[in-house]
Amino acid sequence: MSVYVFGHKNPDSDTVCSAIALADLKSKLGVACTPTAQGELAPETKFILDKFGVAAPAVKTEYAGEKVFLVDTSDLAQLPDDIKQAEVLGIVDHHKLGDLTTSSPLECWIWPVGCTATVLTAMYKFHGIEVPKNIAGIMLCAILSDTVIFKSPTCTPADKEAAAELGKIAGIADLAALGMEMFKVKSAVEGTPARELVLRDYKDFNMNGTKVGIGQLEVVDLSILDAVKGDLAADIAALKAEKGNHSIFLLLTDIMKEGSEILIASDDASVVEKAFGVKPVDGKAWLPKVMSRKKDVVPKFEKAFA
Amino acid sequence: MSVYVFGHKNPDSDTVCSAIALADLKSKLGVACTPTAQGELAPETKFILDKFGVAAPAVKTEYAGEKVFLVDTSDLAQLPDDIKQAEVLGIVDHHKLGDLTTSSPLECWIWPVGCTATVLTAMYKFHGIEVPKNIAGIMLCAILSDTVIFKSPTCTPADKEAAAELGKIAGIADLAALGMEMFKVKSAVEGTPARELVLRDYKDFNMNGTKVGIGQLEVVDLSILDAVKGDLAADIAALKAEKGNHSIFLLLTDIMKEGSEILIASDDASVVEKAFGVKPVDGKAWLPKVMSRKKDVVPKFEKAFA
Repeated sequence: MSVYVFGHKNPDSDTVCSAIALADLKSKLGVACTPTAQGELAPETKFILDKFGVAAPAVKTEYAGEKVFLVDTSDLAQLPDDIKQAEVLGIVDHHKLGDLTTSSPLECWIWPVGCTATVLTAMYKFHGIEVPKNIAGIMLCAILSDTVIFKSPTCTPADKEAAAELGKIAGIADLAALGMEMFKVKSAVEGTPARELVLRDYKDFNMNGTKVGIGQLEVVDLSILDAVKGDLAADIAALKAEKGNHSIFLLLTDIMKEGSEILIASDDASVVEKAFGVKPVDGKAWLPKVMSRKKDVVPKFEKAFA
Repeated sequence: MSVYVFGHKNPDSDTVCSAIALADLKSKLGVACTPTAQGELAPETKFILDKFGVAAPAVKTEYAGEKVFLVDTSDLAQLPDDIKQAEVLGIVDHHKLGDLTTSSPLECWIWPVGCTATVLTAMYKFHGIEVPKNIAGIMLCAILSDTVIFKSPTCTPADKEAAAELGKIAGIADLAALGMEMFKVKSAVEGTPARELVLRDYKDFNMNGTKVGIGQLEVVDLSILDAVKGDLAADIAALKAEKGNHSIFLLLTDIMKEGSEILIASDDASVVEKAFGVKPVDGKAWLPKVMSRKKDVVPKFEKAFA
């Protein structure tokens, strides 16, 4: 019986690429593993897998009775609804410690770095196993994506070192050029329904008993989103009503200007001012230097909702 | 400002020795750390620290506003009452994943092995830092204690390898002899009040909303406890009433016969039969092969209470 390896809902590139890498590593260590994803892959992730000739993992949402390894999250809200009926053998992650608990001992590699693939690079090294060339390529892309080409405040020296090593194995000399190529794919929104854009990198959080959703779109220039911004604002309001959330925020991140516009749908929009000291106008606000949901946004909202 | 490193309430030898080792390792990696303990040390632990000339950590129970590393647990019930007001930088552990959550990314090394000190042995190696001779000695003792001289079902090949390496560094040739010396210290109960024996290695668990306490005494021969067994049974009944627990169980483990007698104080003693298939007589039952609270006992009670 195969062990499944997967990450969070609305899979991003790190969740998918790290699941593939951990399945490869564990299989080589004698535990037969299959990578899966909890949903359809984003265009950026498809681009990455195509570029390095790696097969996309199957979409699978039910895991009752299965053995699993998790990557890139330990939050129940981001895990399958039946995760409590699965046996979690381990977690590789780079986030805060979530509310998943287990009834048996497990293996956790969780480091405060910019990307799960960085932890996996260390795990390959620890076990003395070489990263295959194509997997090195997708792991490198995961790091470039999660650290916004090393610009995010979540980026650590360990991420840069891992990216350099992976670039060597994958035969990629210009890491920044690969990053821009990826982010241009990510920036293409034309013809994509607003709901799909909102959910592309969306996570629900339980903040002190309050359900808060935070989505993020990263683009190489915010003006790309001018034509769809009205639709996005309307859609997060609609999604908030459908899900019964207290709030849904959508971060429109300009990776070159290094800041985010936040679109707000909330029962109490004052939490934004409480969190960032900026008064929203017309349900939105510009947040300079805010690049990372995890580091710049979630902790501030958690305090505001405490 | 120093970062504090400590483990669970009612500190056992692994919690104390691993806190000392992690504080040493982190300090050498540039994060000044001080080991502490949440309570007085057990006789076995004092013997270990004396034997290798290592200073006992100070007892400290309040951590609000402090930065901390945790060892040997991630269960809130086993952590200080004010842990939510501390910043948890990381966890080194070998148990199931508990209900601690954090609001920031952290560093976790949690492996399904017999002892936290085994994980620490790998961490020293990962960072290319030599384990000091005296700390190798106490880490070795932690492994011998937690794995009951390699006899516990929790013992893995990694524990044996780590113990062998640490033995070499510490200059200990006969590991089993050191283990027996330790367990003889642990077995001495004469003149010790029943409450102190019950609490010596006692943990509370939240099992599906039910508060369940499980203590354990490990002796080289169960007959050592004949004279105090009545007092122990009376004391867990009293402690149950004081704490308002649903159940308190005390495991009297015979490390040579490799099994445990369980003393029962419970609102519903049938959970013992449900968990182990053995009908208790006079509030107690012999459980053959049951050596490890973590592996042989907690998962079975968690199912029985589910």
